[in-house]
Amino acid sequence: MSIALLTRLPAAEAARWRGLLEEALGEAIPAKPDPATVDIALVANPPAGSFEALPNLKFIQSLWAGVDSLLADASRPRNVPLARLIDPAMADTMAEAVAAYVLDLHRQGPLYRQQQAKRVWKQHLQPRPAERRIGILGMGAMGQRSAEVLRALGFTVSGWSRTGATVEGVTMQAGDDGLEALLTDTDILVNLLPLTKETRGLLDRLLFGQLPRGASVINFARGGHLVAADLLAALDDGHLDHAVLDVFETEPLPADDPLWRHAKVTLLPHVAASTDPRTAAAFVAANVRAWRAGEPVKGLVAAERGY
Amino acid sequence: MSIALLTRLPAAEAARWRGLLEEALGEAIPAKPDPATVDIALVANPPAGSFEALPNLKFIQSLWAGVDSLLADASRPRNVPLARLIDPAMADTMAEAVAAYVLDLHRQGPLYRQQQAKRVWKQHLQPRPAERRIGILGMGAMGQRSAEVLRALGFTVSGWSRTGATVEGVTMQAGDDGLEALLTDTDILVNLLPLTKETRGLLDRLLFGQLPRGASVINFARGGHLVAADLLAALDDGHLDHAVLDVFETEPLPADDPLWRHAKVTLLPHVAASTDPRTAAAFVAANVRAWRAGEPVKGLVAAERGY
Repeated sequence: MSIALLTRLPAAEAARWRGLLEEALGEAIPAKPDPATVDIALVANPPAGSFEALPNLKFIQSLWAGVDSLLADASRPRNVPLARLIDPAMADTMAEAVAAYVLDLHRQGPLYRQQQAKRVWKQHLQPRPAERRIGILGMGAMGQRSAEVLRALGFTVSGWSRTGATVEGVTMQAGDDGLEALLTDTDILVNLLPLTKETRGLLDRLLFGQLPRGASVINFARGGHLVAADLLAALDDGHLDHAVLDVFETEPLPADDPLWRHAKVTLLPHVAASTDPRTAAAFVAANVRAWRAGEPVKGLVAAERGY
Repeated sequence: MSIALLTRLPAAEAARWRGLLEEALGEAIPAKPDPATVDIALVANPPAGSFEALPNLKFIQSLWAGVDSLLADASRPRNVPLARLIDPAMADTMAEAVAAYVLDLHRQGPLYRQQQAKRVWKQHLQPRPAERRIGILGMGAMGQRSAEVLRALGFTVSGWSRTGATVEGVTMQAGDDGLEALLTDTDILVNLLPLTKETRGLLDRLLFGQLPRGASVINFARGGHLVAADLLAALDDGHLDHAVLDVFETEPLPADDPLWRHAKVTLLPHVAASTDPRTAAAFVAANVRAWRAGEPVKGLVAAERGY
């Protein structure tokens, strides 16, 4: 039996992954394996029809943390277990991005940059971090690590989670009532949810209306969570103060999208937490070994749950 | 004997200080005390001639951490002990500002904001924080706290100090050789030094030349540390990547200063770590009580040292 790497990544990037995965696995990943021998597929944006060609596939390991597009892929065999990437280094990287942009909003970076552009010297009252309430949607590995880093920086942190995870010093909420409770107590909302049929379009007019006036929103999860027209309306009518967006329904974001030039939007090209092949390869290799040994694998996706 | 509050702060700000100081001291600070009865002066930018009018002054407590302008004030009696503010909350606030702007440079915020302005979708390799070397000049209370916060965020941190302070996990340097060693190993330089005759103009062409190509500079100390023309030259010839400046020789910075509109400069209006009268008043009251009891006061300034 053999391993296949299924990806449409640019050749250089795919070659780097292959090298790191082979090193971590201690075995070769054939470039053109005999399809009948492939039992394990390592996938990152697989080419159309990849799965149909593999009749004996037993395990699919995503090289990415987000599996919403894999779950939507009609050609993916429904009876083959699928695991997503859970990379502790990636949780650190996401927490770092969350800290960077929460601090930028907390320290009024967008306002001071606007002032600089107009040569305006004006000081504004600076709240303490304990006076700034951060609400995190999604308390998986990335949300928990983000909450820890924000707590260490002195912020007041709440989290909303399906699983009821607990983090020391963080107020946890769950369910529809919990979501409303979190939103009414949030100055900066950070979205780290997986994209599922329950969470698609969650960041809409209704949700923005539950945030206090002057709140800001950071979306580092998926473009499908956000109803962009509702966000623009809430920024334009002054209810929301600023948005930091890293992910979009269509990527790259089309040049004519109004988000690009909106004064209250900080726009990033999907860089908040890129997968680092160096640390991801070790996780993938460990999961492949666990699967082969009949032991539990990490990050097993429940299709009905959506992640 | 009585306490005088000497300040040219705007009336509302001065009134807020007076109220908080009276509360912390548990005694009134007369608005117009009999000059002969004043033994303690609490000062923040005192009016010209304030000191001459107080023949029995025994102790001067600054409400600010920086005392370079007080030391330069020819009317200040040289034989009266002067203490500067050492506010632990202010060290926290400075460390927060350092973390915010180190993270912004680390996450390539200036580059992504330039791309957004041009509607450019382009991802750049993101180093890990351990791969980013931060050099801190000045390891007093603010420098030490900044180093701790940066270490917790995973950065590689060095510090340069006259006193030889040590912080766990931070490489310490001292003296001229130590400064050169720190600079050659620094990607982001953070200046938190006091302004003295030794440190005035330290951030000049020579120093920038010792930093590796592509380094960035954060000046959160005093405008007098920086030779602005040398900084502009180093940014323009590409040796330095970016500068974050909060302090200037003349404040407010004049509207025609070229720093305002330089694409490689982030300009702040002296807001990195404003004194918070709420926490500062408690420190001041404790120091006044210590001085009256004949106990050691904190933050006693050595004029020959300059802070």
